Amino acid sequence: MVPHLVTALDGPLLDLEQRVLEATPAIERWLRLEWMEHTPPFYCGVDLRNAGFKLAPVDTNLFPSGFNHLAPDVMPLAVQAAMAAIEKICPDAKNLLVIPERHAGAGRQSFYLENMVRLAAIMRQAGLNVRFGALDDELREPLSLTAADGQKIVIEPLERSQRRLGLKNFDPCSILLNNDLSLGTPQVLEDLHEQYLLPPLHAGWSTRRKSNHFNCYDDVAKRFSKMLDIDPWMINPYHASVSGVYFETREGEAQLAESVDAVLRKIARKYREYGIEDAPYVVIKSDSGTYGMGVTIVRDASEVAGLNRRERSRMAVGKDGVEIRNVIVQEGVQTFEHVEDAVAEPVVYMIDRYVVGGFYRVHGARTNEDNLNAPGMKFVPLPFEHAALPDVHAKPGAAPPNRFYLYGVVARLALLAASIELEKTDPEAIQV
Amino acid sequence: MVPHLVTALDGPLLDLEQRVLEATPAIERWLRLEWMEHTPPFYCGVDLRNAGFKLAPVDTNLFPSGFNHLAPDVMPLAVQAAMAAIEKICPDAKNLLVIPERHAGAGRQSFYLENMVRLAAIMRQAGLNVRFGALDDELREPLSLTAADGQKIVIEPLERSQRRLGLKNFDPCSILLNNDLSLGTPQVLEDLHEQYLLPPLHAGWSTRRKSNHFNCYDDVAKRFSKMLDIDPWMINPYHASVSGVYFETREGEAQLAESVDAVLRKIARKYREYGIEDAPYVVIKSDSGTYGMGVTIVRDASEVAGLNRRERSRMAVGKDGVEIRNVIVQEGVQTFEHVEDAVAEPVVYMIDRYVVGGFYRVHGARTNEDNLNAPGMKFVPLPFEHAALPDVHAKPGAAPPNRFYLYGVVARLALLAASIELEKTDPEAIQV
Repeated sequence: MVPHLVTALDGPLLDLEQRVLEATPAIERWLRLEWMEHTPPFYCGVDLRNAGFKLAPVDTNLFPSGFNHLAPDVMPLAVQAAMAAIEKICPDAKNLLVIPERHAGAGRQSFYLENMVRLAAIMRQAGLNVRFGALDDELREPLSLTAADGQKIVIEPLERSQRRLGLKNFDPCSILLNNDLSLGTPQVLEDLHEQYLLPPLHAGWSTRRKSNHFNCYDDVAKRFSKMLDIDPWMINPYHASVSGVYFETREGEAQLAESVDAVLRKIARKYREYGIEDAPYVVIKSDSGTYGMGVTIVRDASEVAGLNRRERSRMAVGKDGVEIRNVIVQEGVQTFEHVEDAVAEPVVYMIDRYVVGGFYRVHGARTNEDNLNAPGMKFVPLPFEHAALPDVHAKPGAAPPNRFYLYGVVARLALLAASIELEKTDPEAIQV
Repeated sequence: MVPHLVTALDGPLLDLEQRVLEATPAIERWLRLEWMEHTPPFYCGVDLRNAGFKLAPVDTNLFPSGFNHLAPDVMPLAVQAAMAAIEKICPDAKNLLVIPERHAGAGRQSFYLENMVRLAAIMRQAGLNVRFGALDDELREPLSLTAADGQKIVIEPLERSQRRLGLKNFDPCSILLNNDLSLGTPQVLEDLHEQYLLPPLHAGWSTRRKSNHFNCYDDVAKRFSKMLDIDPWMINPYHASVSGVYFETREGEAQLAESVDAVLRKIARKYREYGIEDAPYVVIKSDSGTYGMGVTIVRDASEVAGLNRRERSRMAVGKDGVEIRNVIVQEGVQTFEHVEDAVAEPVVYMIDRYVVGGFYRVHGARTNEDNLNAPGMKFVPLPFEHAALPDVHAKPGAAPPNRFYLYGVVARLALLAASIELEKTDPEAIQV
């Protein structure tokens, strides 16, 4: 299945692609030096939006759950990256405990199980014995589950000792979280000082804030753009954060409208600068939400007060029913990518500091301004040819590997921002 | 171009494949721990022979020159491996000087230039500015060359200062040798203590000995086989080394015949043990030769004395006209692999400790016992599907990725042997 991709690349992005291709050795060296200073999270998925005139990360997921959407032939890249990561974290690692989402056992989520199967295969091939442990006190016996593709996995009850977490007859060196901890940090994961928790607990959505991430990204984008001599706006969406917003009671509404207005004005100024005739819009998102929940689009500050009851209650709660109190107002970046007739946005997957593949999130019933992370979305693996070596001699915009390389660079900037974000928000580092 | 592969896999090798697949996490961990102790050479190509009843490395090349024979879609694996290698060797590396073979400029070798183009693309993508410097005192001006595929490269005169080697306006951090130094170590490469020479000078064929390599491999194979509980002979060819052999004058002939006889007897004993009905044979090779030169096959010790004049003079000199005085007598391992009607042997390429791809060396005019590294050979890239994740549930012997994984494991054992060999023969370490 090779997706037929249509990208309306305008002048500015073609220039950027060309500049990135020509500066490849300098960019890779710049990143290499950054990784000397900052440790990437174990894995990461970045949602990008390519508007033709700008290319920006709009969401950085530290618990990627779509490894099954990567093309099978990129798996060796994932294995190699995992090997490099393990070697740095715990070279004599033997056993890996993977903690999936709570809903792993639910029937409608059997596609999530395919992700678990794929993740286990990668980690096994990288030299680890992999078993799954449930964040679920009610699970008393191992539970055998069947993924949509027929493969089976077993999820087992956790066994916690004073200092270590494991399973029956299974003492892991590292624990890989594929559960984003939206509901808070479970006690069973606290005070595990002898084992590596990947990513660390404060990467979970109960503590993580998108606004922290994008503040760090602002700085990364600025430094990268300076090196490349480009306008950072080309790779960075404007954003503002607003706290104390209670959609149900309309508290904080005026402050939110003010922020929306400020961001819209900044976008409008840039649109004028670049002669872009589209109408600016912003996306209001939960500052710690995920799964595409708690997201709404507005084109004018007055729309904030005009949200109807249904829209307000949709914005009031995120994943797992968690109340939304803080939001981020993010510049809306249209996507001009299509897979056949459907609007598409690229998602880039990384393990350690390496891009290992990607896929398109595709939605047939949404527009190019919409959030595509919504029921009805489909996934189309990026064919491996897209990950081939860039061709610096190709006509600008014409070679899929060149475009994918650009995506990989911007995704790694978001990964770098996540690394710095996790350093800055590390509760242990703050105590020191 | 997907090669049609035919492999007559017998019982013993199917068992080995199955055992290796099942023990993958343990094997990868074992290798990971070995790489804590030993540093792999920068790159390496290993020739394997798969006889159906055994799978063995027969040659380990530390100056691989066939990167152009790898499938284009494995390039991202090569880039990722090169990134990991550079990060360890010289994280702030900016410039890389590549030193090609002397014959790079010769017309008939324009395929070698394709290798250089490919290698440069990999290293550039890994974040280095790459230029080529000629080991040729007569080159006074940059020389522009065109590879068989139309791509151009420029080879420049070397500029040596007291402490550093470079090119005009180009001061590299590392120097990558793709020249095997068969003619001896050129003075221009001596005493470069501020720059990294990859691989080190003593990896060159003017000092390296195959017998050292296979002695180290004996030990690696023994340790690996113990872990996996297999007969080390399954993955290791018998060998003996003989020095002071002058084929032209027939000096050392009796000693050589004796070694041939001893190795043949050992093979015959194993053939009886496993019920193999083929006739044992040995390959006599220059102990420091390459390019498939200085190689002959004998089935009986009496054949040594019976070599005719032409055969003796063919054995007397190796690559670049270097006189052969030391030989290795290696157990002949037939290859039961075919690509269409031609006999084939797999070659596995590695960068740092990672398998990055492979190809088949194919020869339509040779038998399954012959050396295939001879004029008339062709190269068929191993399609990328072969490098996909192994399928532990597949019928034994039926899945190309499973077979390729086995090849990758054995090739990495040879790589490990090369690492230990280079440690043991390091002249600086010996001085200490």
